[in-house]
Amino acid sequence: MLSIDADRLVADLQELGQIGRSKGGGLDRSSFSTADTEARQWYMSRCAEAGLAVKIDGIGNMIVCSPNVSAEVASRPAVWSGSHIDTVPSGGQFDGALGAVAALECLRRIHEEGIALNRPVCVAVYSDEEGNFSSLLGSSALVRGYSRDELDAMIGRDGDHFVDTFEAAGGDIDAATRTRIASGSLHATVELHIEQGPFLEQLGHQIGIVTGIVGMGGGVVTFRGRSDHAGTTPMAVRRDALVAAGAFLASCPSLATSTSSRAVVTCGLISVEPASANVVPGVARVTIDFRDPDADRMVTLETKIIDTARSIAEEHHLDVDFDFERTIQPAPLDAKIQGMIEGNAKARGLVASRLSSAAGHDSQNMALVAPTGMIFVPSIGGRSHCPEESTSWADVENGANVLLDTIIQLAT
Amino acid sequence: MLSIDADRLVADLQELGQIGRSKGGGLDRSSFSTADTEARQWYMSRCAEAGLAVKIDGIGNMIVCSPNVSAEVASRPAVWSGSHIDTVPSGGQFDGALGAVAALECLRRIHEEGIALNRPVCVAVYSDEEGNFSSLLGSSALVRGYSRDELDAMIGRDGDHFVDTFEAAGGDIDAATRTRIASGSLHATVELHIEQGPFLEQLGHQIGIVTGIVGMGGGVVTFRGRSDHAGTTPMAVRRDALVAAGAFLASCPSLATSTSSRAVVTCGLISVEPASANVVPGVARVTIDFRDPDADRMVTLETKIIDTARSIAEEHHLDVDFDFERTIQPAPLDAKIQGMIEGNAKARGLVASRLSSAAGHDSQNMALVAPTGMIFVPSIGGRSHCPEESTSWADVENGANVLLDTIIQLAT
Repeated sequence: MLSIDADRLVADLQELGQIGRSKGGGLDRSSFSTADTEARQWYMSRCAEAGLAVKIDGIGNMIVCSPNVSAEVASRPAVWSGSHIDTVPSGGQFDGALGAVAALECLRRIHEEGIALNRPVCVAVYSDEEGNFSSLLGSSALVRGYSRDELDAMIGRDGDHFVDTFEAAGGDIDAATRTRIASGSLHATVELHIEQGPFLEQLGHQIGIVTGIVGMGGGVVTFRGRSDHAGTTPMAVRRDALVAAGAFLASCPSLATSTSSRAVVTCGLISVEPASANVVPGVARVTIDFRDPDADRMVTLETKIIDTARSIAEEHHLDVDFDFERTIQPAPLDAKIQGMIEGNAKARGLVASRLSSAAGHDSQNMALVAPTGMIFVPSIGGRSHCPEESTSWADVENGANVLLDTIIQLAT
Repeated sequence: MLSIDADRLVADLQELGQIGRSKGGGLDRSSFSTADTEARQWYMSRCAEAGLAVKIDGIGNMIVCSPNVSAEVASRPAVWSGSHIDTVPSGGQFDGALGAVAALECLRRIHEEGIALNRPVCVAVYSDEEGNFSSLLGSSALVRGYSRDELDAMIGRDGDHFVDTFEAAGGDIDAATRTRIASGSLHATVELHIEQGPFLEQLGHQIGIVTGIVGMGGGVVTFRGRSDHAGTTPMAVRRDALVAAGAFLASCPSLATSTSSRAVVTCGLISVEPASANVVPGVARVTIDFRDPDADRMVTLETKIIDTARSIAEEHHLDVDFDFERTIQPAPLDAKIQGMIEGNAKARGLVASRLSSAAGHDSQNMALVAPTGMIFVPSIGGRSHCPEESTSWADVENGANVLLDTIIQLAT
């Protein structure tokens, strides 16, 4: 049975895990930042060492396809595998990186062993999965595309405009708006990822077979009151935007728990205007991220969030407005590929269980255009999006081997 | 009766009101910023045109004293008048500027008319009244001084260190730590300021005789929980620092109103770590500013704020810590100077009323070392610390004339 080279895979993950590492121990590779660009260059150099050519599409996705296939094979719909190498601020070294590096390792082994393919195998490293500018940017461009207006409106975590940062990193905005995957060019996709939650570890299982991915919605809620002097303005006449935002923040946990046991609501960013300790804030902006595996409950959640913010604004004599991104619908994953993953795990003596993903992944976009599967491996303590994010090297090896088996099964 | 030159005073206020003006119409002259430095240079050039020499002390206070006084007069305790020319972000054109420019106008008139003085008259423009680095920085240095450690710990609104910004603006940190006013060098101080609240306008009175200045306390409250993935971390196991901060923000109005009708509590700044829309915030920091005219109630307020934050933190399974500045005690102002202001207003046919100041002023520091008075003029709509801050030119002229009368009365 063909297996991946575990030493090489681990060394690659460790090397990549040093790029963008901050003093606090976390990784800061926001998409199109200097550190993200360095990580991309490192990835391309690893491809070059393996004799694999990298194509970069208009939105910055890196695509690496199996060389040495006949023109006939090359013309057939391909099997894609990949993930992302950007991170959240102060993130961990496995989220995205595992799937991106493991897919490259699989392609290297297929190439080294000269496995005869019936279809091309391609590795995809998607741009800005973590939504520095927009969640799942790279795969969203492939499956639905962005208008110039949409790209112009994107602002990153540091307040920078996408257009400026993307062009500074060598991107071409016109090419970005033209990015789409060619119809019929995909046979199937499969992505390896860490679970980012506690379930596999609690069960003591090695492999997760992902049945579907949660829906994701959200955007920015802005409360607008009036800025005033913090000393001379009596409490009774204030229209303090941050006090109202506070009441909204405090209500978020119950908005989730009253909807379903799987619903989550998070406010991760907040800012005020003017920002001064001795001025009553006139404007408060919070980002909201809400998720649920059920499409109807996603609608319920969005309605509750908007109604609650409106009623708090009214109570505080403020205005409120909402700038929400298009909701990404819950995505069931392909049953046939789930079966393949289950069989491949069993053949390697690994215990697998089915679970749904509470995190968003580019696979939920790819599932719109081709049969798609996802393989999870356990996260220690269920932690993710933090420096403590970790997965044992044994679990990394197991997951990569099941990925290799599944890619070969899909492509031969 | 000697009067100020109203046209010159208005022209000066209009000129100064253009420095640091942003697109939104507000003034951005945070202390030691480029715009603040430009305003200082403008002020010094106005002094030079009037034949007045400017001395800059170690913390950056500008001191302008009456020339042409005998050595004997120069050796006597002085009468000081002044205010500040730094602003809050997006502030107005009268807060501080009125008192700083009117005091210069009074000194110009005294100099032009060759008024015989029994004591020196000095104009003081205090550094960083608005607390970009620390509230009432310039006058606090004069009356109590700062250690090098205190200056090293100061961080401005933009995250810059005081030491760096101060040195870049030409300051000398060693000289800053040595700044103190010489004991016995002050006879009295008097400051003209806009009310920044609604009372004089509501009464239809032209002059406010300030009886005292509120106490001011506060600093930073930091909630510490755990950062986690916004999708995969169930609501029940989160330790979300921002949700707790939200509950605290929402409780602030009732902390004030349950203490006294004059108490105010404001959170003007907030930040989270890590700052990303798809990460549960592990740390949330809010600034708190609390004020009351009564010293005992200041202690009550501080206790309530700390107890409330602690109980919210406990309820959310978080830690909380407090980094509060030394409380500035409520300052009663000098009764004799109040009487002078009352008489001078009456002599000019103006209606005056007594009120206390709900805003902090450098005068509350100066009152610790010399008899101190303050004159208020009405604020249109009671608005301040915002672009809409305004006072009629007639009220500006009235206030400056009463200031001139009071300075002359104190100095002759």
